[in-house]
Amino acid sequence: MADLHVPINRDQGGIAGQIAAEIRASIRHGRLAPGTRLPASRDLAADLQVSRGVVVEAYEQLVAEGFLISRVGAGTQVAPTSARSAMDVVPASGPVYSPHYGHRPTSPDLGCFPRERWLASVRHVLTTMPSDVFDYGDPGGVPELRDELAGYLRRVRAADVRADNLVIVGGVAQGISLAVQVLTQRSRRLRLAVEDPNSHRQVPLLLRAGAELVPVPVDDQGLVVTELRARGADAVLITPAHQYPTGVVLSPARRAALMEWAAETGGVVLEDDYDAEFRFDRDPVGCLQGLAPARVILSGSVSKALAPGLRLGWVAAPAELAESMRQARGELDLGSPVIDQYALAHFLRTGGYDKHLRRMRREYRRRRDALVKAVAEHLPEVRVRGIAAGLHAYLDLPPGSDEDAFVRPARELGLAADPVGPTRLTPGPPGVVVGFARLPAHRAAEVIQGLKVRMSGQNID
Amino acid sequence: MADLHVPINRDQGGIAGQIAAEIRASIRHGRLAPGTRLPASRDLAADLQVSRGVVVEAYEQLVAEGFLISRVGAGTQVAPTSARSAMDVVPASGPVYSPHYGHRPTSPDLGCFPRERWLASVRHVLTTMPSDVFDYGDPGGVPELRDELAGYLRRVRAADVRADNLVIVGGVAQGISLAVQVLTQRSRRLRLAVEDPNSHRQVPLLLRAGAELVPVPVDDQGLVVTELRARGADAVLITPAHQYPTGVVLSPARRAALMEWAAETGGVVLEDDYDAEFRFDRDPVGCLQGLAPARVILSGSVSKALAPGLRLGWVAAPAELAESMRQARGELDLGSPVIDQYALAHFLRTGGYDKHLRRMRREYRRRRDALVKAVAEHLPEVRVRGIAAGLHAYLDLPPGSDEDAFVRPARELGLAADPVGPTRLTPGPPGVVVGFARLPAHRAAEVIQGLKVRMSGQNID
Repeated sequence: MADLHVPINRDQGGIAGQIAAEIRASIRHGRLAPGTRLPASRDLAADLQVSRGVVVEAYEQLVAEGFLISRVGAGTQVAPTSARSAMDVVPASGPVYSPHYGHRPTSPDLGCFPRERWLASVRHVLTTMPSDVFDYGDPGGVPELRDELAGYLRRVRAADVRADNLVIVGGVAQGISLAVQVLTQRSRRLRLAVEDPNSHRQVPLLLRAGAELVPVPVDDQGLVVTELRARGADAVLITPAHQYPTGVVLSPARRAALMEWAAETGGVVLEDDYDAEFRFDRDPVGCLQGLAPARVILSGSVSKALAPGLRLGWVAAPAELAESMRQARGELDLGSPVIDQYALAHFLRTGGYDKHLRRMRREYRRRRDALVKAVAEHLPEVRVRGIAAGLHAYLDLPPGSDEDAFVRPARELGLAADPVGPTRLTPGPPGVVVGFARLPAHRAAEVIQGLKVRMSGQNID
Repeated sequence: MADLHVPINRDQGGIAGQIAAEIRASIRHGRLAPGTRLPASRDLAADLQVSRGVVVEAYEQLVAEGFLISRVGAGTQVAPTSARSAMDVVPASGPVYSPHYGHRPTSPDLGCFPRERWLASVRHVLTTMPSDVFDYGDPGGVPELRDELAGYLRRVRAADVRADNLVIVGGVAQGISLAVQVLTQRSRRLRLAVEDPNSHRQVPLLLRAGAELVPVPVDDQGLVVTELRARGADAVLITPAHQYPTGVVLSPARRAALMEWAAETGGVVLEDDYDAEFRFDRDPVGCLQGLAPARVILSGSVSKALAPGLRLGWVAAPAELAESMRQARGELDLGSPVIDQYALAHFLRTGGYDKHLRRMRREYRRRRDALVKAVAEHLPEVRVRGIAAGLHAYLDLPPGSDEDAFVRPARELGLAADPVGPTRLTPGPPGVVVGFARLPAHRAAEVIQGLKVRMSGQNID
């Protein structure tokens, strides 16, 4: 039912005519689209403080002219054939998705998003919470969610956090952006070490937040801490659970070395807990934050465990820094939407989150194994790395290969594949990142075989 | 069901003992809270790649020690009396709400939030949308919502917008913050005129976004445009539909003068469409953006119409500026959560939004009238202003009054009241802002009478 904008000049008289003229113009200029239902004459009359007869008169005039149609039981609507102005409604022009096995190599399988159980959590919130929770709230997040998350992170990530260390954010991107903004504010200048190669989509974000970037190389044990020491930095942004793009898990020796660096130099470690939910081999590794809660800012999200579209994550930091981030959040957007926050708290409390993760971990392990097997069989010249955790594999291409000669046909086959080149701040050997989260195990062999066929004749080695 | 973090060293032997030790430590240190359900022995064994017997042995040991309890049909749980470390869970420490008629004077009546119909929209999204919509999306907002909103704003606010002029944001605060950031980026320096008095909660936000503030006085016609000209500015932030705190609606002459200023100087008008949904007198006024879409950035939200906790709003700007804001949003937090965006699109499309607004407008008008009547009767020395629109009234106190002598007893009576002093950048006569959205019409007389009694003997005049 349309809410109409109808200005009336009572000094002019002919009020029915004025109403009709206004509605006519609205239809002509596209402000009232074909099919739009107009308010009942009784309602519009009450709104405009005119008698009902005046509105009926206006409507009848426009029905007579063909702008409106009126049917018993269906009320009055804008006629489907109404004249429209040049300013037509733009057709929905979002990205077009064809059948595929992934959007980004880092995306989870959204076909497994637990829609029914999530809806049950939202229903729980909407049917049980007091009205006041829907008001302006704490920009740092609702207390119930911070409590549940603190328990979860202590239990599953061996983090050393309490509710007052946590700030709820719109995902890791915002978490890191807030942390860098707050750190920059304190020191005026922030030399931030970043992994090389790294998730290049983050670079504009880090620069916007005010950081100066210092690239530090990553080898097969993770970030090279001796290089970090040599280059010097106030803080370092790192993905220890599953580095992007190499897939390396930070080795125990490097974890120790990094913590020593932080303790000696007073440096801050920004820990992006990327892909931590999905560790496939025997020894899960707790987060760095649990080792040195005074020196580490941990950021994570539900993007891999549930869905990126929820835009829901957290930052754990020493209480004073957490308070600064909470305040900064209040000066940016007043915090995250509350219904999903309460829904996630309910989902965690009732075990839905753990259950979903357990199920997905088994499934992703199966898909990873199928991809690895298929590559070993059909592309023996390619070495697979970085598969102890996460949703993507790093493929080392033979020296001199053209990354695009792999990526293009892979994408044509529906595989989520990205070249490694753009993620490097300094040049390195060719490689590609391939996501396996959406590639069903029973399709892996066929897809990789198809890739081999398409690449034959191309310059891969 | 808990997801456990249990590192195992296979070289050491005694795996059941290692598992038990780890769980014991987790319980002692509070990582596993009393009552937490442990995974079934079969599931944990599969995760850790050990035999089920090993896990059963570990669980039995801990049951024997009193750390766990095991009941048929209920699985294994952490015992309620388990020892806990010093790091206890912090009790939920959110704001405590007592029965009242408002949280802020600007808050809507959240007891009227259409929970069932909103849930129906969320259900529609979760049961009908393809999985890909839950992935990373357009940081500028989902196309379906931008289409629906463009239609709504054209129809109800007489705005001149299409979907590609719109960026979905987390409320007006973020909308204005983004706009100021983008404008600052372009000109390096942004002299931003602000109304005086104004919504003082916005000041830190504007400064953080990079603006230099230029106060311009507001009189009973709204912003004094001659003063804006005299002081000079690159842009002006204004609340034409219902000024905060004065409640003034920008007069037709001032609207024209403001548009002249923008055209002549190339200045940008940042229009905060505050309280535009609730216009109570005869002539609704379209937004400024509809008059000069090339010079006005319009920002609005569902905070007053539905609930601030949804954190959902929009910015309409010339396409090129909209694109810059969309990009900036991508470098801050990757956009707003998608489920609520689709839900709002559905709510708009099916007429739920218009219907709710129509209902609330009638109700708020009733409450406003009751408040005005009660003040006239019981506090004749107080003049009520700014009530042509919105959810709050501006009360002029007699010269020399102490604002707090009104605000304190008003709040004790549950009324949402704020002093005007803190909203002024330059001193002015005493006043208070009172919200009527949550004050039931039948309670108004009693509350204002109570206020009169409490204030008697206090220095109000």
